[in-house]
Amino acid sequence: MNLKKRVELITLGDELLLGLRTNTHLNFLGSHLARRGLAIVRNTVIPDDVKEIERFFPISWNNADIIITTGGLGPTSDDNTRETIAKCLGLELIFDPWIKEKIEERFKPRGITMNNRQLRQCYKLQGAEILANPVGTAPGLYLQHQNKILIMLPGPAHEMKLMFEKEVLPRLVSIGIMDERDSFLQLRTFGIPEGQMEDYLEPVLKDYPEISSAFCVSQGIVDVRLTPANHDYCSKKLRSIGEACAENLGEHFINFGFNPPAQYVLDQLRSMEKTIATAESCTGGLLSSAFTDIPGASKCFVGGVVCYCNDAKIQTLTVPEAIIQQHGAVSEEVAVAMATGAAEHFFSDYGLSITGYAGEGDGSPQNPQGTIYIGYYSPLGAWAQKVVYPGERLAIKQRAVNAALDLIRRKINKFKLAEFLLEEVQ
Amino acid sequence: MNLKKRVELITLGDELLLGLRTNTHLNFLGSHLARRGLAIVRNTVIPDDVKEIERFFPISWNNADIIITTGGLGPTSDDNTRETIAKCLGLELIFDPWIKEKIEERFKPRGITMNNRQLRQCYKLQGAEILANPVGTAPGLYLQHQNKILIMLPGPAHEMKLMFEKEVLPRLVSIGIMDERDSFLQLRTFGIPEGQMEDYLEPVLKDYPEISSAFCVSQGIVDVRLTPANHDYCSKKLRSIGEACAENLGEHFINFGFNPPAQYVLDQLRSMEKTIATAESCTGGLLSSAFTDIPGASKCFVGGVVCYCNDAKIQTLTVPEAIIQQHGAVSEEVAVAMATGAAEHFFSDYGLSITGYAGEGDGSPQNPQGTIYIGYYSPLGAWAQKVVYPGERLAIKQRAVNAALDLIRRKINKFKLAEFLLEEVQ
Repeated sequence: MNLKKRVELITLGDELLLGLRTNTHLNFLGSHLARRGLAIVRNTVIPDDVKEIERFFPISWNNADIIITTGGLGPTSDDNTRETIAKCLGLELIFDPWIKEKIEERFKPRGITMNNRQLRQCYKLQGAEILANPVGTAPGLYLQHQNKILIMLPGPAHEMKLMFEKEVLPRLVSIGIMDERDSFLQLRTFGIPEGQMEDYLEPVLKDYPEISSAFCVSQGIVDVRLTPANHDYCSKKLRSIGEACAENLGEHFINFGFNPPAQYVLDQLRSMEKTIATAESCTGGLLSSAFTDIPGASKCFVGGVVCYCNDAKIQTLTVPEAIIQQHGAVSEEVAVAMATGAAEHFFSDYGLSITGYAGEGDGSPQNPQGTIYIGYYSPLGAWAQKVVYPGERLAIKQRAVNAALDLIRRKINKFKLAEFLLEEVQ
Repeated sequence: MNLKKRVELITLGDELLLGLRTNTHLNFLGSHLARRGLAIVRNTVIPDDVKEIERFFPISWNNADIIITTGGLGPTSDDNTRETIAKCLGLELIFDPWIKEKIEERFKPRGITMNNRQLRQCYKLQGAEILANPVGTAPGLYLQHQNKILIMLPGPAHEMKLMFEKEVLPRLVSIGIMDERDSFLQLRTFGIPEGQMEDYLEPVLKDYPEISSAFCVSQGIVDVRLTPANHDYCSKKLRSIGEACAENLGEHFINFGFNPPAQYVLDQLRSMEKTIATAESCTGGLLSSAFTDIPGASKCFVGGVVCYCNDAKIQTLTVPEAIIQQHGAVSEEVAVAMATGAAEHFFSDYGLSITGYAGEGDGSPQNPQGTIYIGYYSPLGAWAQKVVYPGERLAIKQRAVNAALDLIRRKINKFKLAEFLLEEVQ
């Protein structure tokens, strides 16, 4: 991390403080800055209110080298950021005809004429560069002042993200504050607890004291980040160290980088020209939704069934009623029958299923809340696996989905060759 | 809002700043405090690092009356909050045998013995009360000091939430800082843009200048909050004013309170003893997942199908191939056929479907990205509705789900009586 530069993010918005909207700006900016060697050391969420900005903006300005603000640049009466920060820094606001032209261009096809409130967006801080907004009216601002950098971005998430990628990132790279490429190598893993990760990495990393490792845990996924002490470290050498670590991690290693587990599974299936279908009960469609979050999923993901009552399991997935009666709807046997039923129903090569107890008050003495069975069907056979997770309904649902994606990843890796051979024999 | 008391939330965690985890603590605490008349005026996210806590805790302490911290109370070496805040406030840490006993009780059945790191959790700030942790080891702390209140909560979300509800809320109510009941009446609506809401409310609210209104917008839902100037305002009177507003809002009014739209739909279906099934393409299971997030959903929600390729639509939902060829997979006709197919497939009374283009690069000149068709099947007939949303894939998916839930809500309300009558005739 580029710890010589302190980055602070100020997120403006009453709706965040009232708990009505989630602060996804921090997720996006935090992860994108970290990848290129810059860390956000503090995020402040305040209302878009003149007094609060006057109270807290100067504290961030004094404590950081780079200050990013999001929100409060629009035309409404509660957008106060531009004017208040100009006042805090003792800078004038200057009318910019280029901004006016751009906004008018956006409005013209829709027959909107610019009013006085819209005109406020045409002012920039004295000395600032304009950050073009390709998908909205409010432009961003970029100011180098008092040996610091101020970056003001709009609040709507898709405007903020595009502006950061197209306008901010190239500027910070060109002045050498952000790295041109990722500053660390990430190994995504599943199945090794954070506390045991060192045992797998130590045999490799002990020979490279210049490489430090850090772990990030999220819903069962453990990311290992290998960071060289020196920014100019040979990327080929870092990669070969990463590959040696990956070999030690064995089948727990998923891939290098940031792709979600569903993407890895779909990539594998696409390379094999195979298709998959899903069957879910307690996750209620979250597994199929994870697949369909990936662009191009339709090439391999055929469809899914959510069976929330036993009748639906019996009818749609042709799970034999006797199996449900004998073993219960939450059992290895039903998980396997659901996965098989999904593949048969959608004429897919693979089937993946989840059945379990996710909600408060669900479950039985043998299978308490958090008990999940994952079923897997493939041309070579069918399996099931039991996992148990603590926590709340939504956390259990998410972990179950990750566990299911991980099961099929392992099975495909293990049997890929065998399944190809089988196909040739048939 | 109780603006005489300033509440600041300090969230500790490197993973938040690296963008690896979402700050759900702010959502939970922000909304629960706001309901009882307290507002978080600032949230600061910092790493659990001694220097950063020393730098920023005193600023919060000086600016607020109530300071809530989350995270950093556990046994690992990067849990520094308790020790550092004690130092900032010049308070001693005192060993508490009751905490040790409680942790040992938790560990005993699992055969774990307490180590020195675990022992750190047994210390409390001098003068602090202990907040019991019913689902984890680290207790919370509650301190009244220098005419301010410090509340220290653990980081894991389910521990933090339970501790807030069971231990913090009753304390703040008993000393009169939080209201005993909700401090405002919320009317949940869908379909009226925020900018036109005043036109609907003004005819009622002009007679009650003591009631102020505020609007909160989230993915198509607009919440109206009616707040009386006086905390002791008659709740019956407030309710009757709310009901007059609801009448003016007409079918755009959903219900009073905070229930998600899926809950309202399920409640309606349950009162009619009817069932529902879903069929989705672009939302990929998010609609069925919204139903299954509601406890007890299985009484009315039978199941759902995610059809991600046209073949699946044809086979599973018996959507005639000719309809897809003639009108396209994203069309009114296919939406209706999907809803009908879902109801037939799962033997449910109602069917609800979504087909559309959510992803970047999807769509056609007639139906660009963001175009969604919602289909609805009922015993009285089938309909479809087109909506168009801007933004990214995930935002479009969420808005489409809310729009589908709203369509069926309106249809059920409108035709509930007619459908009951129809049933009697049959």
